[in-house]
Amino acid sequence: MELLSEHRCFGGTQRFHRHESAELGLAARFSLFLPPRPKALLVFLAGLTCTEETFTMKAGAQRLASELGLALLMPDTSPRGANVPGEADAWDFGVGAGFYLDATREPWAPHWRMESYLLHELIPRVQRETGLERVGLFGHSMGGHGALTLALRHPGRFQSLSAFAPIAAPMRCPWGRKAFAGYLGEDRAAWAAHDASELMKGRHTPPYPGGILIDQGLADKFLAEQLHPEAFEAACATVGQPLTLRRHAGYDHGYYFIASFIDDHLRHHASQLFA
Amino acid sequence: MELLSEHRCFGGTQRFHRHESAELGLAARFSLFLPPRPKALLVFLAGLTCTEETFTMKAGAQRLASELGLALLMPDTSPRGANVPGEADAWDFGVGAGFYLDATREPWAPHWRMESYLLHELIPRVQRETGLERVGLFGHSMGGHGALTLALRHPGRFQSLSAFAPIAAPMRCPWGRKAFAGYLGEDRAAWAAHDASELMKGRHTPPYPGGILIDQGLADKFLAEQLHPEAFEAACATVGQPLTLRRHAGYDHGYYFIASFIDDHLRHHASQLFA
Repeated sequence: MELLSEHRCFGGTQRFHRHESAELGLAARFSLFLPPRPKALLVFLAGLTCTEETFTMKAGAQRLASELGLALLMPDTSPRGANVPGEADAWDFGVGAGFYLDATREPWAPHWRMESYLLHELIPRVQRETGLERVGLFGHSMGGHGALTLALRHPGRFQSLSAFAPIAAPMRCPWGRKAFAGYLGEDRAAWAAHDASELMKGRHTPPYPGGILIDQGLADKFLAEQLHPEAFEAACATVGQPLTLRRHAGYDHGYYFIASFIDDHLRHHASQLFA
Repeated sequence: MELLSEHRCFGGTQRFHRHESAELGLAARFSLFLPPRPKALLVFLAGLTCTEETFTMKAGAQRLASELGLALLMPDTSPRGANVPGEADAWDFGVGAGFYLDATREPWAPHWRMESYLLHELIPRVQRETGLERVGLFGHSMGGHGALTLALRHPGRFQSLSAFAPIAAPMRCPWGRKAFAGYLGEDRAAWAAHDASELMKGRHTPPYPGGILIDQGLADKFLAEQLHPEAFEAACATVGQPLTLRRHAGYDHGYYFIASFIDDHLRHHASQLFA
């Protein structure tokens, strides 16, 4: 696990690592913030076109994470360096757009395995090396989709969950349909297994009885076509899943929005991770 | 004054502007954060290679600035688009490296006028448009040099002053000597008029009786050769200028360092601007 750089930050340490991932069959980068006294791990999944550096640099999360004792793990958003033909032709598919699932369709299947990479390789490894047992999960946009779906697909694996402007019903939106068709083919049942609203509807009991937090800006230019938080809200209502979905007038889809509400998310996770 | 983009942020507004600068003879960009109830203006000058976006995006300053009522103005670090031959050949001279002075040497003199641009054009204009009377000044590295020198060269213009890892004695360091020779020629007296330590030594009374705050990381790779805070410290001692120079073990020259101590700087300025 190569250390690329290390920066003292709010009394803790902000590190950037590279490692050879067995699941991806490629080298992968991630960012890890370690507060002075880490008590739990919180994983942030970023959105389309982002890298492990985006949230690390722009969200302003380390201040309160240091105070609360939350270690922060920021993975990359896709495999890189696979040299799949066309992998960088679009900003919403391929490189920077892994959608946090394991592709079943060629030519993506051998490397595009972000779900297995995160669940079976990166997160367990960071837990082992830090000794942190409890893990929270959150993300933004495509990473909000990743957080909601991975948390619902792996019951009990994460102890807290939240999202910023998630792609909450990907089967209903252009980003999701493009990604699912490309990575999974045309089988709609396979799509539903990676759609947060469909997954929630399929539950019989609330998977996060302590509640899920979602923040959504109302000036977000992707809201109407791509995000559909109302579908996830309806699914939660069906199952009795407590959801705090806050709609914020004037806020857009970017990191000035995330930074404005990051402290509330960190406190949400701390309250459930340290319960 | 063209509005390039606008983002709701911590209850205020983060704006990016472009305007035609008469002093520079070029279009220039700047960033402005307006809190819900602005009470004073705080100007941040960034370091080598940075733009108006760097501090805006990486420092995490808007949270407390919003709470305190500080409007934040982030100018660019040099003229851009002048097409002076060789202007982009080096990262420490020319584009991205204006050093916050008016060049007297050709071919830089017509456009490289950052001091006049800031003092006679941008800051007064933003003050007029916001109605904010009191102004604080701070900066990082080359921008720390800019903050210290502009505040000392224009007594009474700024009501509070601080810096992160400033180039505190540019005549003694390679960055400063290169910039001064290129922009000002070989006249050492002209250099001294833009060297914070020399300017402070020339004062008979402390120009900032309320105190100057400087933070410096001890793992900063530029500290020994380029920054020389001890020279400014000695100059302050000579004049009786109160200086809080904090040396932080383990911190480097980057924005993780700045973010870690930004709140202390904002409070330092608020305490003097609202006095």
